[in-house]
Amino acid sequence: VTQASTRGGIGESRVLDPVGVLPQAAFHLDTTSALRKGEVRVRVTLLNLDAASFHQLSEKHAGDGDAIRREVLSIIEEHGKMHNPVTGSGGTLLGVVEELGPGVRTSLSPGTAVASLVSLTLTPLVIDDGLSNWDGKSPLIPASGYAILFSPQNLISIPTDLPQDLVLSVIDVCGAPALTSRLIRERSVFDDIEPSVLIIGAAGKSGCLSAVAAQEAGAATVAGVVLDETDAKSIEKLQVFDSIIVGDARLPIALAEAVGRTFDITVVCVDSAGCEHGSILVTGRGGTVVFFSMATSFSSAALGAEGIGADLTMLIGNGFVPGHATDALNLVRSSTHLWAHLEERLQRVSR
Amino acid sequence: VTQASTRGGIGESRVLDPVGVLPQAAFHLDTTSALRKGEVRVRVTLLNLDAASFHQLSEKHAGDGDAIRREVLSIIEEHGKMHNPVTGSGGTLLGVVEELGPGVRTSLSPGTAVASLVSLTLTPLVIDDGLSNWDGKSPLIPASGYAILFSPQNLISIPTDLPQDLVLSVIDVCGAPALTSRLIRERSVFDDIEPSVLIIGAAGKSGCLSAVAAQEAGAATVAGVVLDETDAKSIEKLQVFDSIIVGDARLPIALAEAVGRTFDITVVCVDSAGCEHGSILVTGRGGTVVFFSMATSFSSAALGAEGIGADLTMLIGNGFVPGHATDALNLVRSSTHLWAHLEERLQRVSR
Repeated sequence: VTQASTRGGIGESRVLDPVGVLPQAAFHLDTTSALRKGEVRVRVTLLNLDAASFHQLSEKHAGDGDAIRREVLSIIEEHGKMHNPVTGSGGTLLGVVEELGPGVRTSLSPGTAVASLVSLTLTPLVIDDGLSNWDGKSPLIPASGYAILFSPQNLISIPTDLPQDLVLSVIDVCGAPALTSRLIRERSVFDDIEPSVLIIGAAGKSGCLSAVAAQEAGAATVAGVVLDETDAKSIEKLQVFDSIIVGDARLPIALAEAVGRTFDITVVCVDSAGCEHGSILVTGRGGTVVFFSMATSFSSAALGAEGIGADLTMLIGNGFVPGHATDALNLVRSSTHLWAHLEERLQRVSR
Repeated sequence: VTQASTRGGIGESRVLDPVGVLPQAAFHLDTTSALRKGEVRVRVTLLNLDAASFHQLSEKHAGDGDAIRREVLSIIEEHGKMHNPVTGSGGTLLGVVEELGPGVRTSLSPGTAVASLVSLTLTPLVIDDGLSNWDGKSPLIPASGYAILFSPQNLISIPTDLPQDLVLSVIDVCGAPALTSRLIRERSVFDDIEPSVLIIGAAGKSGCLSAVAAQEAGAATVAGVVLDETDAKSIEKLQVFDSIIVGDARLPIALAEAVGRTFDITVVCVDSAGCEHGSILVTGRGGTVVFFSMATSFSSAALGAEGIGADLTMLIGNGFVPGHATDALNLVRSSTHLWAHLEERLQRVSR
């Protein structure tokens, strides 16, 4: 029994080329609207670009919204999916169930408002409004078109007690708090310690969610690294950090000095490249670093740890942990501070 | 206490730019021969290019040895280290201790034959013979020049009971069997199971070493994936595999069908890009995939697992595990089959 067959469709028939790969690795996807076995078609209302992808596009086009919009459209048209060729990342989407394909068993029905739990990098997507309602200056894209999901398990029904853009932005990163929480619990059970946890990029979405999850899971201490005093002030209000350090994770020596100690678990949520070595330096012997940023370089992490003789475990942040989306939304519901912080960030980003 | 200060020098003063990063991330290293505190200078006799790097260079230049040599020389001259800008990987080196810097405490002395335990991507290197004794057709490069190691802990004295090129090629990948072994033991202790282990790329150096390590560490079954019948025949002689599967890990659907089951631990030792999804498909729920190839794509692994809803742990293969080099050499000493297989591969590669 493979992973595939326990999980329903994985979309192999939607791959045009190269033959034999999964949709995420495909260059071109088949976006035919007619549904195949197990598939669900969603009418798209909002796309949320992955932070690393939006950051790269913004930098490349120096914030020129029209140029950014044209490039996003051209990527979607060329590949049949929103898969940033530079960052390798996508994002997620929100919409309404349009049609259920043959053999689909689900509690969802046409008209249900849903969000996707899988990346845009593997989701056949057709845009029919030229993204004309988007100014190119925010990762949240009002959009009209359709997407094909390979299984109803890749969708969740959107709760009505939370704002839609908040739900979408939380779901986009819900793997991070879920895995952080799991690591802390495992450490508690197997090693009988309450681990110390450092969140690098603590003011961002995945960072602040992971910090709250760490506290809930029983971390002995939760510390956060942020880039400037404004972010430091902003996350103080979360009342979850035992210490907040201002520092640049891309400068490993300076970061290690600013942090001044090592942690059992380091959670890397920064969207910029080059944070691997700093993260390793602030993690203690036998500790764990988990990388959630799509800007992480595999070889830089592997060779960096070897180069400084760092005996620690490094994890590729798997975006899937069972129950991750519901758990993350419950975290937001349980903390008014977290809710307010995320809302404030959303407003800042979309300004 | 940071990782750095427990391990001796990490070479920050050798970084020319960008300022503040570690040597592995640096664009230019200072190769001045005068030694600084804690450093050791080694007279280089042999370089061993990382497999992913040599593979990339060979493909790029269609096997033209002169062109490959010129590019290697030009990389070393430009960066002050052998750091392949495409693969991000380096390799390792062998030589003789030339001089110990101020404050160095070690049992090594000038004249001791040594191998480096850290990547060439972070090692200041000067070549003075134009690599004129290398035909560019093998990753093993006879060379003359010097290298600067930041700490004597980054060197191991070369044993005299094994051929030098064998020692070098084993040390280059010794993190793989060490981490494989640790994962199996941890799984045995914490989950009280003898895990099933699949080695993808089982005929290569890191693959066959990891397979023997897996058997020694108590794996319930050890299976191997190889690319063709020749490799399959070749590793049969190791007498370590319960099953050997011929398949291409870059074609995930076909791989999953050929393998026909899932494993608790999958060890990925293939030098090619695009093996992430196949590796995930053949790993069971709650299992672990460890990636050792420098050709691994972080985002492809992270988004691939999410896309198929695979609940598993993915590790960046850390090249450092305490005692890894000695343990790997002992594996070779303990298995005449393994020794013979590695020797045969060396001869094939350097033909």
